[in-house]
Amino acid sequence: MSSFSNARLLIKPIDQTAASQAEELQLRLTKPAGSLGRIETLGIQLSAISGVVPPPLPMPAAVAVFAGDHGVHAQGVTPWPQEVTTQMIGNFLNEGAAINVLARQIGASVTVVDVGVAGFLEPASGLLNRKVRLGTADLSIEAAMSHDEALSAIDVGLDVAKELIAGGARSLITGEMGIANTTASAAVIAALTKSPVREVTGRGTGIDDPTLQRKIAAIENGLARVGNDPEPLNVLVEVGGLEIAALVGFIIGGAIEQVPVMIDGVIANAALLIAAKLEPDVVEYCIAGHCSTEPGATAVLEHLGIKSVLDLGMRLGEGTGACLALNIVDAAARVMNEMATFDSAGVTDKGNA
Amino acid sequence: MSSFSNARLLIKPIDQTAASQAEELQLRLTKPAGSLGRIETLGIQLSAISGVVPPPLPMPAAVAVFAGDHGVHAQGVTPWPQEVTTQMIGNFLNEGAAINVLARQIGASVTVVDVGVAGFLEPASGLLNRKVRLGTADLSIEAAMSHDEALSAIDVGLDVAKELIAGGARSLITGEMGIANTTASAAVIAALTKSPVREVTGRGTGIDDPTLQRKIAAIENGLARVGNDPEPLNVLVEVGGLEIAALVGFIIGGAIEQVPVMIDGVIANAALLIAAKLEPDVVEYCIAGHCSTEPGATAVLEHLGIKSVLDLGMRLGEGTGACLALNIVDAAARVMNEMATFDSAGVTDKGNA
Repeated sequence: MSSFSNARLLIKPIDQTAASQAEELQLRLTKPAGSLGRIETLGIQLSAISGVVPPPLPMPAAVAVFAGDHGVHAQGVTPWPQEVTTQMIGNFLNEGAAINVLARQIGASVTVVDVGVAGFLEPASGLLNRKVRLGTADLSIEAAMSHDEALSAIDVGLDVAKELIAGGARSLITGEMGIANTTASAAVIAALTKSPVREVTGRGTGIDDPTLQRKIAAIENGLARVGNDPEPLNVLVEVGGLEIAALVGFIIGGAIEQVPVMIDGVIANAALLIAAKLEPDVVEYCIAGHCSTEPGATAVLEHLGIKSVLDLGMRLGEGTGACLALNIVDAAARVMNEMATFDSAGVTDKGNA
Repeated sequence: MSSFSNARLLIKPIDQTAASQAEELQLRLTKPAGSLGRIETLGIQLSAISGVVPPPLPMPAAVAVFAGDHGVHAQGVTPWPQEVTTQMIGNFLNEGAAINVLARQIGASVTVVDVGVAGFLEPASGLLNRKVRLGTADLSIEAAMSHDEALSAIDVGLDVAKELIAGGARSLITGEMGIANTTASAAVIAALTKSPVREVTGRGTGIDDPTLQRKIAAIENGLARVGNDPEPLNVLVEVGGLEIAALVGFIIGGAIEQVPVMIDGVIANAALLIAAKLEPDVVEYCIAGHCSTEPGATAVLEHLGIKSVLDLGMRLGEGTGACLALNIVDAAARVMNEMATFDSAGVTDKGNA
């Protein structure tokens, strides 16, 4: 029995009592009621996640970049060669990628996790070797991975979440790298939101029309093996990715440990969708950092009834949008911890005026 | 001749050569072209503002909270008593207000500037006494201030901008406090965007329907003195506020010194609109931090063709939204300074694949 099967039993709903107390505290802080908008509701959510009022700061944060390759790359779904996955891992380890810069801004650690790169990587500081297999099979032709492999990859994510939190992380940031992974994500999203493939399939890193047509065809071929009312784990097995599976576990791991999980772009959205279908209680532990320009991202957020914190026209992944948004979430926690109340500041409350 | 008259001559257009070089650098960083969306365009704007590629970080930042009272308060346009302006200044000086918390998060200083509070304040550290008059006159009945007072208040903002930048600030954050100042702002915005008063007048701190009707009537009475094709300084004189005037100077001061000016909510939007009508070149030095839920805010941003960085349902003012957004602007500068290029990182660029 995988640790994932046990883990599911450990997820609790968020703390509604703490949420009510947090809402009441917001009304006593020196500002017109509701005037900080999302900053107030984020603060309340942080209290509901942690069960503490005012909530702990979400710092320090930990970024996990789960890396995997995709057999569907062979179908010509992207102009980027597959070795860019490995090259970008080198860039992450040398701290030159966008996620490194943005993590540094907020003092977050970056851990790269090889859960399924299609080649062997040199051991390095900051790199965890948790490879489940050498990339997925081509989802347009056959199941991307076996059921056991999917469970193993989920366990990788669960373990990494647990390790990072044990190491002091107070929030988790969902990162990923894998050339062709917007193809697998769109397939997962089409299946689980029951959307037409062409409505949730985007141009990823920026592909031309013929490439987009190949991408859509590959997804449709894969989804022909998935029924109309699919079971989420089966969708992951048939058309998912190893980094997507690991992110499912990572998200569930954050929910178990009651820390906020910052959701990045369309790949993390696909993982969140699977996690939500498996265990709906995880959703309230998650904060959508930004809304990717990939159409699948919007489909997931609408399906789950979530609004992203940021909307900056980004589509890079790596965890970049989630990392940026943590600045805002941190501000929400600080407001609840540090602002004066009407009473303490001697300011007349309109309600008492 | 006021220093404002001289100052107008010192504003230069932003640096288009630096903007082009910044755009070219963005293409060489290890990310698909355009994939960081607004983070890329903000970085390019920072280079155009400073004339430097990659641009300097906008940190440390300085918040100036310009405070003033409003004679139109007598018309019952808000349930908050006028003394709350002074009480909130005490809260700012004791570092208990939202702007203090958010400034602390980004390491920004907060300077409170009394440009027109309707009472005398005790001297305090962090408070500048630059009072032009004891609050404005009631704009629904007569000119809010004289032409000379408007120029003096603009000069206050110019001087404070200059002083803060001389003290090391690398960006300016537009803050304000003044009970009833959404009334004056809506009046300015209606006049200069030529919008119907009821379309740009909102509920400010959260007013009921009868109060909103009184607010609209007060503004309409004031605007009856302003013609259909009004001169921006005359609008400021007739229906503006002393803190709005100071913000006009503060914005122009930032543009002269070529530092980014972070624009907060509807009061700062009203000031930006006046500044833009006086000197269109200032607009490119400004970054709209967030879009207030006040309808006048949207009217200004649409009128000037600007998109805010954040949209978090906020309507507090004080500089809070602008302060939050500086995290994102800082990230944009860091990306340009710290990311590896395809060449330096040995990552295959799709363009060369």
